[in-house]
Amino acid sequence: MPDYNRQILLVETPKGKLGPEHFRLVEAPLPKPQEDEVLARVRYISLDAANRAWMQGATYRSAVEAGSVMAGGALAEIVESKSPALRPGDLVFADTGWQEYAVLPAKRAAKLPRLAPLTHLLSVYGIAGLTAYFGLLRVGKPQPGETVVVSAAAGSVGSLAGQIAKIKGGRVIGIAGGAEKCAWLTGALGFDAAVDYKAGPLPKALKAAAPDGIDVYFDNVGGDILETCLFQMRLRGRIACCGAVSQYDGAPQTHGPRGVPGLIVVNRLTLQGFIVMDYEAERAAAIAELKSWVDAGKLMVQEDIIDGLENTPRALIGLLAGENKGKRMVKVA
Amino acid sequence: MPDYNRQILLVETPKGKLGPEHFRLVEAPLPKPQEDEVLARVRYISLDAANRAWMQGATYRSAVEAGSVMAGGALAEIVESKSPALRPGDLVFADTGWQEYAVLPAKRAAKLPRLAPLTHLLSVYGIAGLTAYFGLLRVGKPQPGETVVVSAAAGSVGSLAGQIAKIKGGRVIGIAGGAEKCAWLTGALGFDAAVDYKAGPLPKALKAAAPDGIDVYFDNVGGDILETCLFQMRLRGRIACCGAVSQYDGAPQTHGPRGVPGLIVVNRLTLQGFIVMDYEAERAAAIAELKSWVDAGKLMVQEDIIDGLENTPRALIGLLAGENKGKRMVKVA
Repeated sequence: MPDYNRQILLVETPKGKLGPEHFRLVEAPLPKPQEDEVLARVRYISLDAANRAWMQGATYRSAVEAGSVMAGGALAEIVESKSPALRPGDLVFADTGWQEYAVLPAKRAAKLPRLAPLTHLLSVYGIAGLTAYFGLLRVGKPQPGETVVVSAAAGSVGSLAGQIAKIKGGRVIGIAGGAEKCAWLTGALGFDAAVDYKAGPLPKALKAAAPDGIDVYFDNVGGDILETCLFQMRLRGRIACCGAVSQYDGAPQTHGPRGVPGLIVVNRLTLQGFIVMDYEAERAAAIAELKSWVDAGKLMVQEDIIDGLENTPRALIGLLAGENKGKRMVKVA
Repeated sequence: MPDYNRQILLVETPKGKLGPEHFRLVEAPLPKPQEDEVLARVRYISLDAANRAWMQGATYRSAVEAGSVMAGGALAEIVESKSPALRPGDLVFADTGWQEYAVLPAKRAAKLPRLAPLTHLLSVYGIAGLTAYFGLLRVGKPQPGETVVVSAAAGSVGSLAGQIAKIKGGRVIGIAGGAEKCAWLTGALGFDAAVDYKAGPLPKALKAAAPDGIDVYFDNVGGDILETCLFQMRLRGRIACCGAVSQYDGAPQTHGPRGVPGLIVVNRLTLQGFIVMDYEAERAAAIAELKSWVDAGKLMVQEDIIDGLENTPRALIGLLAGENKGKRMVKVA
């Protein structure tokens, strides 16, 4: 074990677009766990669009302050424990931040089973998979035969949400950026249709793909794409509000989508926000069902693994620009 | 019975604000019912903000075309029947339009009980009362002790929704225009607080009235007031989207409220639209419960009755300007 710890600091709260200049790699002494704490070695850091939102202020967690280690969830391995709850060798998920080693209160580390590949603990059995599962099934609630639209459909959550909607008998349309991603959605993932929002006006393309309208829209992006879908919702349609990635990286939004609340009233729509922590009690059952689909070959898990802690900033910057396909993570050790 | 029928036509679809110039009073021959139709004499015409929305295009009903009799629900009495379902003397609720007599298919007229005062059939036991009841209890779902905010709180739906929220143990804050209406809400109706949106910046006044935030917002207005409430919702808050009266009378809205979908996600909010027809199966039980509250003196019914068919246009124009207190209707006969 080294006696230093490489860390990536957020050196400045970005005003506009996130760039490499907002981060700095530093070395710090290896921290020591105190009573009820553990020392964890970070294996894989999860990259999520929400990381960017955390920089702007309090969300469902407090804001990341400039000058501190960038926050982020990771798969980590316990190397030293001052708690009876965890032992060296245990695998955990925790907000370790972007660094090689982290000292944490044991109660802030969730013990995970060992399975292969380990990275599935961060993708399909992690926050991405559970977000797709609960957001689609508990909030969107598609019925067989209904039309389900998913935005950021080639991303970690979207690619799983769309496949789960297919498993449940929906007609599934993905919205993604670029012809290659769209071909992947309808090819490898079995979506019924895909719409490339970069290729031309979205309203027309979406109308062509969903001529009878949308029953469930799984919204990962907010902004103009949310507005477009809102205008194409069917009576009693449901919008699962999962994220607003279009709003995270840049100037704050000056207005919301047209049609709120007029279309919500007229078409009796439901827009509902959720986060995965709300469904903690159902977590084990959800993972078991996800695993049954993965094992049966019904759910394809796409991972996008980048090597090296020092590449974490650019991994997040690229994710916000939509360059990833599936779950992006950084392998630290 | 006269041999002519006074009618009010919508002569032009308004581009901006509705004015008296958009209507004309005409006389037409008294119509005759055919097989399965009835001739109904209009007693009281219901004025509703939605009447204005109907002029702009298809909503939950088709648009009112320029040149036709203005549409509107009314309490009417059957004077001649060619249907076994209804007899002369029966009271019905139907979309008779703004006229003294109407011929209707019998199946489009809902038979009502006779009770006193008859006008309660259009207020607390009519669409207004049922909208308040279902919107609050089935969509907003306040729990005892929760903070409930109602906009257009001195209007027909708002005044009832707020009182029902009080009956159910909520802490109720009304938003209304003018000191007199606000005093009436906290005085006669027993609201816990009232905020006059015309008196100064709403965000600050609302924060003072609901310092811990809002659990349920019953939205009758949309627009800026919806945006203000959205920013003050508590975790897992619910917004019952009942109407958007701020949007009906003027240029179409160019954007929606900020905070959609960001605040919906972060605070796990639900925005849900509804219309009273969705709850037809529960209608009789709802009316029975409303009647028990009225009879027990727990629910005060405020009616604002204007005399004479010729005054119907100005009654609607005034309603859109917020001049009414309680349920506005026009006594025709």
